[in-house]
Amino acid sequence: MSPIADLSRDDLEALRLKVRGDYEAFRARGLKLDMTRGKPAPEQLDLSNGLLAFPGNRDYFTEAGEDARNYGGLQGLPEARALFSSMLGAPADRIVVADNSSLAIMHDCIVWALLKGVPGSAAPWSQTSSPAFLCPVPGYDRHFAICEEFGIRMIPAPMTGQGPDMDAVEALAADPAVKGMWCVPKYSNPSGEVYSDAVAQRLAAMKTGAPDFRLFWDNAYAVHRLTERRREIADILALCDEAGHPDRAFVFASTSKVTIAGGGLAFFASSPANVRWYLARASKRTIGPDKLNQIRHVRFLKDEAGLLRHMDAHRVLLAPKFDAVVNALEARLAGAGVAQWTHPEGGYFISVDVADGTAKQVVALAQAAGVALTPAGATWPHGRDPHDRNLRLAPTFPPLRDVRDAAEGIAICILLAAIEKLRAA
Amino acid sequence: MSPIADLSRDDLEALRLKVRGDYEAFRARGLKLDMTRGKPAPEQLDLSNGLLAFPGNRDYFTEAGEDARNYGGLQGLPEARALFSSMLGAPADRIVVADNSSLAIMHDCIVWALLKGVPGSAAPWSQTSSPAFLCPVPGYDRHFAICEEFGIRMIPAPMTGQGPDMDAVEALAADPAVKGMWCVPKYSNPSGEVYSDAVAQRLAAMKTGAPDFRLFWDNAYAVHRLTERRREIADILALCDEAGHPDRAFVFASTSKVTIAGGGLAFFASSPANVRWYLARASKRTIGPDKLNQIRHVRFLKDEAGLLRHMDAHRVLLAPKFDAVVNALEARLAGAGVAQWTHPEGGYFISVDVADGTAKQVVALAQAAGVALTPAGATWPHGRDPHDRNLRLAPTFPPLRDVRDAAEGIAICILLAAIEKLRAA
Repeated sequence: MSPIADLSRDDLEALRLKVRGDYEAFRARGLKLDMTRGKPAPEQLDLSNGLLAFPGNRDYFTEAGEDARNYGGLQGLPEARALFSSMLGAPADRIVVADNSSLAIMHDCIVWALLKGVPGSAAPWSQTSSPAFLCPVPGYDRHFAICEEFGIRMIPAPMTGQGPDMDAVEALAADPAVKGMWCVPKYSNPSGEVYSDAVAQRLAAMKTGAPDFRLFWDNAYAVHRLTERRREIADILALCDEAGHPDRAFVFASTSKVTIAGGGLAFFASSPANVRWYLARASKRTIGPDKLNQIRHVRFLKDEAGLLRHMDAHRVLLAPKFDAVVNALEARLAGAGVAQWTHPEGGYFISVDVADGTAKQVVALAQAAGVALTPAGATWPHGRDPHDRNLRLAPTFPPLRDVRDAAEGIAICILLAAIEKLRAA
Repeated sequence: MSPIADLSRDDLEALRLKVRGDYEAFRARGLKLDMTRGKPAPEQLDLSNGLLAFPGNRDYFTEAGEDARNYGGLQGLPEARALFSSMLGAPADRIVVADNSSLAIMHDCIVWALLKGVPGSAAPWSQTSSPAFLCPVPGYDRHFAICEEFGIRMIPAPMTGQGPDMDAVEALAADPAVKGMWCVPKYSNPSGEVYSDAVAQRLAAMKTGAPDFRLFWDNAYAVHRLTERRREIADILALCDEAGHPDRAFVFASTSKVTIAGGGLAFFASSPANVRWYLARASKRTIGPDKLNQIRHVRFLKDEAGLLRHMDAHRVLLAPKFDAVVNALEARLAGAGVAQWTHPEGGYFISVDVADGTAKQVVALAQAAGVALTPAGATWPHGRDPHDRNLRLAPTFPPLRDVRDAAEGIAICILLAAIEKLRAA
């Protein structure tokens, strides 16, 4: 296909009629498909069914011989911390294991920072005039929702394909009101990009206006690869340490997309001072996490090798779905000059930049044809994409056949919206 | 025994020597006993071992046919809300089921109130000049710790044996800076008292200076009786509704002392507006609770009758421990005029008022004799008991034989401290 911008008015109209026909035919199929959220599919959850009968009636003692049923153990079981130490890039004593949601840990870090401050704060963040976070875009809507909830200003920073644009980030971080930055360093949500070592190095070393600046390092997809190649990212805690900013990074992760989405474990890892700070705050909130669920995970995954084998089984289920989306986009859109899409090596999303000003229309067309997409703009702070062009596709949950159908429909919608925009111009 | 205050100087000295001898003999036994925290004993946790193998590999569907393994279900499963509806005194649609800690729900309500306000707030509580909570004393140290953490002033209010002194509470609540009040309405921590219907009625109806005043109604021991008699408390949500203050009460509870202390369920129940508020805030924090643990509880306890039968089994284990403490105090201290203690009909504690100015000394004497007690003052805000007289005894965790030994030692320490105080006067 040649770029639609190069077509004559007549050829464009002919193409429009053809694509409109394709769209109507697709709509006539009366499908009902959902590509909105990064949820694991039932077959993925089945991989962890062995966990559901653990610990069993008599197996509730920790390696230290403590009764995991009772109160306590705020930092999490040492054996659970050790199991995920490599995934988190932190020694076990710098890890906290909490309940099922890493988002909850991030939320709590923000509210405690607002009300109490973090190590190095001269005052609680809420006493800063107009505190702000840097938000690489496109990014994760639930990160942005926490900032919005608590009135934290969000400053978008562009992504480069290797992580955020560090010239822009360094300039923005010089403002003392900038207290933190959201980062999904590996298989980023939604672009799939992996932060380069140089980016991580600059994030660790950069001068910040706020002495209590924090990287919210959400390593959500640490072990979630989609190809044979295993990507590694830099050890952010070590880099921060070496750069003289030992307390700069808060590292987050969870097993929501490893074991059980609604019943996994979530993790916080950081410097000794930050871990002490976190535990001191958390001790006011709870007597301890659900240690039985930690025992379930230890019994089931056993060790780092078991964890990686388990992730390989996820990959076998997921890779064909991502291929189906990329293939459908390729088949319908290659060369048309109407969209660019990512080929992620891991993570849960495909990010598509459609023709400027058409993302909302693509979502509306897809909706009318039975394909639910994440609202256009969701990947930007406050849901406002200034170019109205980014779409996040989430192919993990539906069956492969549905993903294939949905992707075909989405490709048609992208092309139709671009043609109609061009025609109206 | 006659009151030690009536003894002649010689008789007092003779008694002192005898009791000092008893103390030294007790200390010589080299015991190591812990009466500090309200933890269930292993035999109590054993009652719920059947829960530990649930749901099993294939039983993860909710009554509505949803897959409990995946994300979502922020309010909790309808069947879990129905199971605990009677315990909470609220219909299922006014209940939220969260993870293992009701303290965490209270903490979150406080931080959200501080940062966002509650329904009816003109501004976030943190923008109020010097916000305060009423704290019936003696009370629960972890409640007080949350206030202390966030700089909320604590105003003690006396207890009467039927709940807080309502004349005092009504006068204090007229201050617009008073935003809330801690209440443990049934088998109160630590006094064991049960709020009378009249007290509940006045709490619901009283005029408060703050339009967004909240009762933090921590019904921690709703089904935790120690005797044949089942005490009922008033329906606080209905009373608030009738009094024209439908949003006044936040109700909290958990199964920490019903099933698994570290792996139970926690609950929030309130008015429709408060539940909407809670869920709107919680939706920024998490995608949903661990629904598999809710399924475990539903499969195991089955229904309200199952819950109450289960609590009867706890009672059989706990009542002898409470009896042992009361009997030991009675045996050593009756008539001596050195202490008053509660005879709780439920809950987890015995509260002892020793001779004024001796509580710290009793704890120190007990410590030196191998009996760990909760620090004196713990039942008061900031750990400061102005009379230095209240002790909280927690007899649930140690084996019965240890409870008996510890109680004997404590009684000796109480008597010795009182005699030595009187002698020095």
